[in-house]
Amino acid sequence: MAKLLVLYKTPTDAAAFDKHYAETHIPIAKKIPGLRHYEISRGPVGTPAGLSGVHLVTTLTFDNAAAIQAAFASPEGQAAAADVGKFATGGVDMFIFETAAV
Amino acid sequence: MAKLLVLYKTPTDAAAFDKHYAETHIPIAKKIPGLRHYEISRGPVGTPAGLSGVHLVTTLTFDNAAAIQAAFASPEGQAAAADVGKFATGGVDMFIFETAAV
Repeated sequence: MAKLLVLYKTPTDAAAFDKHYAETHIPIAKKIPGLRHYEISRGPVGTPAGLSGVHLVTTLTFDNAAAIQAAFASPEGQAAAADVGKFATGGVDMFIFETAAV
Repeated sequence: MAKLLVLYKTPTDAAAFDKHYAETHIPIAKKIPGLRHYEISRGPVGTPAGLSGVHLVTTLTFDNAAAIQAAFASPEGQAAAADVGKFATGGVDMFIFETAAV
């Protein structure tokens, strides 16, 4: 499997972010071709030392890294990427990698 | 479920990092009480734009956030945390959060 991990930094308006994410972004993102599993953090994102500066962590699972590249190139993936710019006011880090259980 | 997400930044010696992680850290981390699933990235960690500066992403899954706090407080968790300091020469970011599928 391969994952697209997205870390959304603390936005300027958390309530507006949460509303947009739930009502608009999730329905758009769920249309991305090849998406096998979609998981999001619930509640605060902490660190062992306390606050993290990250508001939301999302993990989208695909069959492999090529499927993620194809997803980004698709109209649905481009729509999801464009939507991120509308609510991720704190900035966002994205990571793409293949995974294995140990 | 709850996750401990660990992002290891690019180390000074990637081969030494990989050897220590595989041969020493995984056996230590697998002893952490309450650990339900343990997944690591394989190969490069990219971004939509290219290189990420992250060498390894690991995700440890527990029943809930309280189980992660208990794991950190356990002797096995403290041994794993102490071991991180021996090989994570590029630094490390850790995030703790509860998750839900959407």
